[in-house]
Amino acid sequence: MCSISPDAHIELGENRIASGGDVCRVCSGAQNSNPARSKSEKEQESMRISEVGEFGLIARIDKGCVNDPSTVVRGIGDDAAVLTVSPGRKLLVCSDMLVEDVHFMRGVAPWTCVGYKAVAVNLSDIAAMGAEPTSCVVSIALPPSATVDSVDGIYAGMKYLLAKYGVNLVGGDIVESSIFAIDVTMLGEASEEEIKYRDGARPGDVLMVTGDLGASAAGLQLLKSGLDCRAWTADSIPSIEEPIEPEDHRTAVIRAHFLPVPRMRESRALAELGTGSVTAMIDVSDGLASEIGHLCDQSGTGAWIAADAVPISEPTRAVAREAGLDPLNWALFGGEDYELLFTVSRGCVGEVVEAFAAAGLSGVAAIGEVTEPSLGRWVVMPGGRRMELTPGGYAHFREGSR
Amino acid sequence: MCSISPDAHIELGENRIASGGDVCRVCSGAQNSNPARSKSEKEQESMRISEVGEFGLIARIDKGCVNDPSTVVRGIGDDAAVLTVSPGRKLLVCSDMLVEDVHFMRGVAPWTCVGYKAVAVNLSDIAAMGAEPTSCVVSIALPPSATVDSVDGIYAGMKYLLAKYGVNLVGGDIVESSIFAIDVTMLGEASEEEIKYRDGARPGDVLMVTGDLGASAAGLQLLKSGLDCRAWTADSIPSIEEPIEPEDHRTAVIRAHFLPVPRMRESRALAELGTGSVTAMIDVSDGLASEIGHLCDQSGTGAWIAADAVPISEPTRAVAREAGLDPLNWALFGGEDYELLFTVSRGCVGEVVEAFAAAGLSGVAAIGEVTEPSLGRWVVMPGGRRMELTPGGYAHFREGSR
Repeated sequence: MCSISPDAHIELGENRIASGGDVCRVCSGAQNSNPARSKSEKEQESMRISEVGEFGLIARIDKGCVNDPSTVVRGIGDDAAVLTVSPGRKLLVCSDMLVEDVHFMRGVAPWTCVGYKAVAVNLSDIAAMGAEPTSCVVSIALPPSATVDSVDGIYAGMKYLLAKYGVNLVGGDIVESSIFAIDVTMLGEASEEEIKYRDGARPGDVLMVTGDLGASAAGLQLLKSGLDCRAWTADSIPSIEEPIEPEDHRTAVIRAHFLPVPRMRESRALAELGTGSVTAMIDVSDGLASEIGHLCDQSGTGAWIAADAVPISEPTRAVAREAGLDPLNWALFGGEDYELLFTVSRGCVGEVVEAFAAAGLSGVAAIGEVTEPSLGRWVVMPGGRRMELTPGGYAHFREGSR
Repeated sequence: MCSISPDAHIELGENRIASGGDVCRVCSGAQNSNPARSKSEKEQESMRISEVGEFGLIARIDKGCVNDPSTVVRGIGDDAAVLTVSPGRKLLVCSDMLVEDVHFMRGVAPWTCVGYKAVAVNLSDIAAMGAEPTSCVVSIALPPSATVDSVDGIYAGMKYLLAKYGVNLVGGDIVESSIFAIDVTMLGEASEEEIKYRDGARPGDVLMVTGDLGASAAGLQLLKSGLDCRAWTADSIPSIEEPIEPEDHRTAVIRAHFLPVPRMRESRALAELGTGSVTAMIDVSDGLASEIGHLCDQSGTGAWIAADAVPISEPTRAVAREAGLDPLNWALFGGEDYELLFTVSRGCVGEVVEAFAAAGLSGVAAIGEVTEPSLGRWVVMPGGRRMELTPGGYAHFREGSR
């Protein structure tokens, strides 16, 4: 009925204690792995949420939520969290929700990866502004029939990434639902001159992108094909700290899909370059074509990119070869790469490359140029042929390739 | 699959324009009611979300989101919103999610009321801290088969209440889902000495509560009974500015259930009383018994309340009489009243009553006293009989009365 029933509406405010969860290897770095756990703990994990009850469930969440106590006056435990914001800094806030059967499938995505990704996509949004994440609140909707270890896994994945970047989990809501849904609201801070908007690109600026593109779409392609997926989707995804063997290109793209790395350090390096160097920034969540469209729309410009310059990793190319597909399509239209796309004043490209190299950061590539709006948006193919770039695809590739 | 598909994941960032929605009378004060709307507008409203598409949908949301531009550096339109926080003030943040079939039923709760309530419960949390709400982000999950007017209605209800209290909607997320879910994250501000926590109650303090209790549960009872509900649930709930005739007790409790009034002005009056007067505060979302339990748990105290002193409105009593039920049960265990429960130093009760009277605020009642923890939690019934108070009910009333 039209009521918030007490059982269906559990504020994190009531948390008190917590116990560890059974987690996959992605979080093994941050979690205690104790093979000698008692039988009763094991039994508890396979219990349904409806059996554990309100307080049993929230008691599992509270531990390890505060990674930077200096900004938290009051975290979980009251009607609202109370935080400090550094004097003279701006407050940033963004929100991204993941929903079962739309953003992940029960039984395909490991729970730790679902939690990890719910946080990662929000960190990426803060990174795309040139800001530093500080705290988050998490609202989670859970079916009463779900097991306790699904909740443990989701929060373990979230906490792994929050701890990595010193971000606090300070509150939220837990509600009953027929499906899983996780909504993370991330707060961040930045000084005014560090913040990078989408609307600052100017004709003549150079388009640059961090890391490589298309790997997440390649991973999704493997999952969709159903080919040999179980090997990577159960508990066997290598920790993001673990190197992947060169020949294991499938594992590499599956990991890119399940465990995208938000570009926090790269964002910091760009924010610290000083005003005037980086003129606009956005993260690549819907594919390069879509993000270029947003930058151009909001900056009032056109742009071209060189197909050859778009960074695509060897594992992504290998998966594309096996599937008989063009990996450029994944880079342009796949999305979920969570790399940073940004525009740089023409004279400052060297400065960016040097800053990245000096800090030992992931690769950075110049892929094109911002133009006058009348010139439109184009991909220049090898050999010089120009294809018009639209978020949904471009004419040549549209047929049969997605 | 395990992907955020571009179509399923629409950030509010892409909003540009907006048009009005068809709203029920609750929002008539804040919305333009235009009986001469064109047929094409009407057709558009009954269109399904899947037909309108990403940009058509978000274009309807953007208008009227910023009610206090002074704190918004950048609202909807980028990877994250950028806000200012007043120097020396603390930042407050809370989150509450409403889910279809758990917190509201499609076809029973008018959409404007669903949106209104999603904001109201969060404003109430900020009020319970003695803080002032400033901005919010909204994540909403929508079935593609839903009609556009459902979205218009939800946002109209939210914006009505946000405008009333000068709160900004600065961002969020729109995702595809099999069911409706709305998660609001509310930000607020307060100076350190204004903030009221749950853990400050001390033995000897007086327990006080704003307004009256049990009306929302009475309304829910009417909805559950199925008796004559359509008259109140379609588009006919009187605006919260409209007086209700004394004999219309059913409308009064239905309105209390669908359109709870967050006690923002009362919170302000209490916050301004100065430190030491109000020692602890919480909002009544799960029933008086549950909230007294939270205050006592966190403050390390006991408490008693006088059953006769619990404020219950005449409409609530009338509905209880018709149903043959005791309205005290609704007040103690019903919840969703969103009144403020607070504890006051013994010498300061007069100060509170005077401040409320001077500001023309809703009623305030002293209902009991905070005690040493060893004395437990009790309701003193008329005649002096004492019943132990637990969040789930107390022995005498537990049988057959819920």
